[in-house]
Amino acid sequence: MPKKEKSKLRIIPLGGLNEIGKNITVLEYADDIIVVDCGLAFPDDDMLGIDLVIPDITYLEENADRIRGILLTHGHEDHIGAIPYILRSINPAIYGTKFTLGILRNKLSEHSLPYSPDLRCVNAGDTVKLGEFSVEFIHVNHSIADACCLAITTPQGVVVHSGDFKLDLTPIDGEMMNITRLGEIGKKGVMLFMCESTNAERPGFTPSEKTVGKSLEYIFNTNTDRRIIIATFSSNVHRVQQIINVAHRHKRKVAITGRSMLNIVSAAVELGYMNVPEGVLIDVSEIRRYRPEEITVVTTGSQGEPMSALYRMAFSDHSQITLGRGDLVVLSSSPIPGNEKLVNRIINELIKNGVSVLHDRAVEVHVSGHACAEELKLMNALLKPKYFMPIHGEYRHLYANRDIALEMGIPSENIFISDIGKVFEIDKKGARFAETVPSGKVLVDGYGVGDVGNIVLRDRKHLSQDGLIVVVASVDTESGLLLSGPDVVSRGFVYVREAEELMEEIRQIAADVICRCLDRKSCDRMELKNALRDDLTKFLYAKTKRKPMVLPIIMNV
Amino acid sequence: MPKKEKSKLRIIPLGGLNEIGKNITVLEYADDIIVVDCGLAFPDDDMLGIDLVIPDITYLEENADRIRGILLTHGHEDHIGAIPYILRSINPAIYGTKFTLGILRNKLSEHSLPYSPDLRCVNAGDTVKLGEFSVEFIHVNHSIADACCLAITTPQGVVVHSGDFKLDLTPIDGEMMNITRLGEIGKKGVMLFMCESTNAERPGFTPSEKTVGKSLEYIFNTNTDRRIIIATFSSNVHRVQQIINVAHRHKRKVAITGRSMLNIVSAAVELGYMNVPEGVLIDVSEIRRYRPEEITVVTTGSQGEPMSALYRMAFSDHSQITLGRGDLVVLSSSPIPGNEKLVNRIINELIKNGVSVLHDRAVEVHVSGHACAEELKLMNALLKPKYFMPIHGEYRHLYANRDIALEMGIPSENIFISDIGKVFEIDKKGARFAETVPSGKVLVDGYGVGDVGNIVLRDRKHLSQDGLIVVVASVDTESGLLLSGPDVVSRGFVYVREAEELMEEIRQIAADVICRCLDRKSCDRMELKNALRDDLTKFLYAKTKRKPMVLPIIMNV
Repeated sequence: MPKKEKSKLRIIPLGGLNEIGKNITVLEYADDIIVVDCGLAFPDDDMLGIDLVIPDITYLEENADRIRGILLTHGHEDHIGAIPYILRSINPAIYGTKFTLGILRNKLSEHSLPYSPDLRCVNAGDTVKLGEFSVEFIHVNHSIADACCLAITTPQGVVVHSGDFKLDLTPIDGEMMNITRLGEIGKKGVMLFMCESTNAERPGFTPSEKTVGKSLEYIFNTNTDRRIIIATFSSNVHRVQQIINVAHRHKRKVAITGRSMLNIVSAAVELGYMNVPEGVLIDVSEIRRYRPEEITVVTTGSQGEPMSALYRMAFSDHSQITLGRGDLVVLSSSPIPGNEKLVNRIINELIKNGVSVLHDRAVEVHVSGHACAEELKLMNALLKPKYFMPIHGEYRHLYANRDIALEMGIPSENIFISDIGKVFEIDKKGARFAETVPSGKVLVDGYGVGDVGNIVLRDRKHLSQDGLIVVVASVDTESGLLLSGPDVVSRGFVYVREAEELMEEIRQIAADVICRCLDRKSCDRMELKNALRDDLTKFLYAKTKRKPMVLPIIMNV
Repeated sequence: MPKKEKSKLRIIPLGGLNEIGKNITVLEYADDIIVVDCGLAFPDDDMLGIDLVIPDITYLEENADRIRGILLTHGHEDHIGAIPYILRSINPAIYGTKFTLGILRNKLSEHSLPYSPDLRCVNAGDTVKLGEFSVEFIHVNHSIADACCLAITTPQGVVVHSGDFKLDLTPIDGEMMNITRLGEIGKKGVMLFMCESTNAERPGFTPSEKTVGKSLEYIFNTNTDRRIIIATFSSNVHRVQQIINVAHRHKRKVAITGRSMLNIVSAAVELGYMNVPEGVLIDVSEIRRYRPEEITVVTTGSQGEPMSALYRMAFSDHSQITLGRGDLVVLSSSPIPGNEKLVNRIINELIKNGVSVLHDRAVEVHVSGHACAEELKLMNALLKPKYFMPIHGEYRHLYANRDIALEMGIPSENIFISDIGKVFEIDKKGARFAETVPSGKVLVDGYGVGDVGNIVLRDRKHLSQDGLIVVVASVDTESGLLLSGPDVVSRGFVYVREAEELMEEIRQIAADVICRCLDRKSCDRMELKNALRDDLTKFLYAKTKRKPMVLPIIMNV
């Protein structure tokens, strides 16, 4: 690298911009690289059969020897979920707070890795020195315990990365976001503020987590004769803590169900992030020993997930809990865009079974974990950054966050809406976009990482819409004889038993095409296949207005 | 039919309960049947490749000679959309108001029917005599012109069917819903009120359509230097009328784009449901002759539909309009559950291209067409029905509507939450549920109506998740020789060029299975296929954690 290149600070988001999830940011100076977060995303609707999406880390793989560490802001999937996958090719030290690493350890235990990862625990307030970088972890409020933002001192000035945050004046764990420290850093001068954008379109302040506690208190007070089942995000230990507190005050036992909920609560208790009064928690199997009004159940499934505990309870498929008349289900969450129909399905089924349902439209049983516009302004006012880069969100969110920065007095030429793979560089002369590096979506399907791409997805889409027709024939191209077939097999196209006539027509057309080709001297297999595909596709579209995939297979015997 | 059966009024919803859309209700007395509405529904997410869903009308087909007429409450797809399909098997007289039939005629012209349908135009206030039934059309407000509810006099009393409605004190066409007439009918006594439930969960009153006009006025006043593009539902002619009025006041021309928008506006103008000042409408091709601030574009695509005019404009795929800096797009709609991501995609693309976007979260540019809780109470207060049946909605909506009826003093034993196919009968002794008749979802895919069922959908689902592997071999079962193959072809499973080793492994396993079977004296083709399917599925799951469909084809040469 030439010397003048060496003195540039380069910032490269590899995920999290123009998309929801898979947040990951690379910072680079001279020979040192650090990485902030490494999350996964959930597949889009058109990524059929895909389990999850992780960032393309080609750039990190190519520069593996320069990576000084991965810094985790908090333990949500969209910030740590890709770690088990990237550890297959790189193995840098991973820094995070106790709870973040606790969740990560849990996750890693489900993957068999060739080596044990190098996890290094930090506390909010700690500073980690990584080559030319020095990274301070600063406590923020969020919908998970032990979340931090990062103040990264570089030779080109201080970069603040917000992580995900909100300002909670009355948080459950007693600690407000450390705005004093952020103000101090701001006073000394911030070169760049990379700020999350999730709620940038929403005006005002996000309510405190404690408001949910008040709603819960009201719900428990007005439902003293029912069993109460509360579904929420498993990682929101403060929410679960509040449920346990309210239940305890109302002399109820709490049973926890759902694999991820059990995992996270036990980790939180063990690491000291939850405080459970003795005797409150019971096993789900013990529920039958109590009267309904003595029980609270905390469960996963608030997004309507079809295999979740709540779904199974609603559809009478849970081994220990069946819901019915006299039960109250509280959905302490709001549906993530795209999940509305799934959540609806559960609500309908519950009400059908006589269960009362409370959700966040009716009572304030959920608050967001992300900063709204006024909190974003507060951060800008504290940090007074020279440059501003909105991160974490679709374009509309990034753009709304840009407007907030503008309103706070940052000149538009100092605001940079970036994209994944885009290099943003800062040096003595200023800041600008430079080249792009490889970036994108790597699809995970079963054990396969990256082996499903556009061609496979295009075929899945095609197959999902109209199914397929396989035409098989055995021919002797030398003698020009059709030895067997054509046989026609279809799947996902039409119910074959009721379409025998159509199948016979297809067979007949295929036979004609094959014989016509064999009659000619120069019958080429590829040509024959193309003719079969074209003629059958045309015939079927005219006849049914559908375009099944036509798969001709010609065997040379 | 025995005489005592003959004196029963039977009410059979064949659609619209426990689902959104495909509204259709059958009323039956002695030898007479009438049908209220006949709508379609949009496919669920798991109905892969399906275009639309219509009700199962087996019951009507079996009793075709007794049908005295179909009565349409209004011209929305979920109330008239199945008519072109059911007219393939039955052909009763169809009654509706002028605008409703105008839209229906438009729709029917796209289907080639063996006869011309018997459409009979009525006005609000008219009464139609159909056998033992006498049906009065009563004007209501809704998000489409010329909507009615029905007061159906039967030998067992009066049944009021709400259709879809809201109360609008300042409607665009000058006519408030006829609550005076409904009150008169209530005074004389109503046996049963069948009431729509869409907004039953929402408190208060639905705002007047006119509030949107005020927002539009504000938007036009504050954007005098931009081109304004407004997307809305094509059937909402009052919305379009308001846009035209505001545009005209601001001396702008209006260009209309989108096939359904053009169709409906021209029908509305022709039938006198819209009043367009001379010279306001221009063709889309004339836009370039005006400055941006002289133009308003009205378009379809407010739900993010990928082929809609707005989508094409956003993604620079519209032949005449490209959107960019200086344009303002107003989404005068709210996303139907399930469409949020599609709408999001358009908003992101527009903002990326420098377009300003206003949607209903930011400004009041949309109001619902359905009654909220207080309007539903008003209807109950006016009609004072003996029996109450909530219709049009998922279970949660029906149940919320039931709670409203309870609150209005209808005893719970007189409230009946029904389901499709369920017969509800009223006679001198009272009311009760009786047997069920065939009902359900008929799937339309291309030209096929009902030829795609669970098996085909299950296969499409399977293919969409993990693709397929076809294994073909030519054998001579008599001699026990493998003549050719096995060949392995895959689609939608894995990118074959990068998985040659895996394909070879599959081929090898298949060859082993085939040879093992052929070696035995009694090699049965079915047995061989099952063995291939089982062994390959097991191998592939262990290797990839995926379960592609395995399709073995054995040719006997």
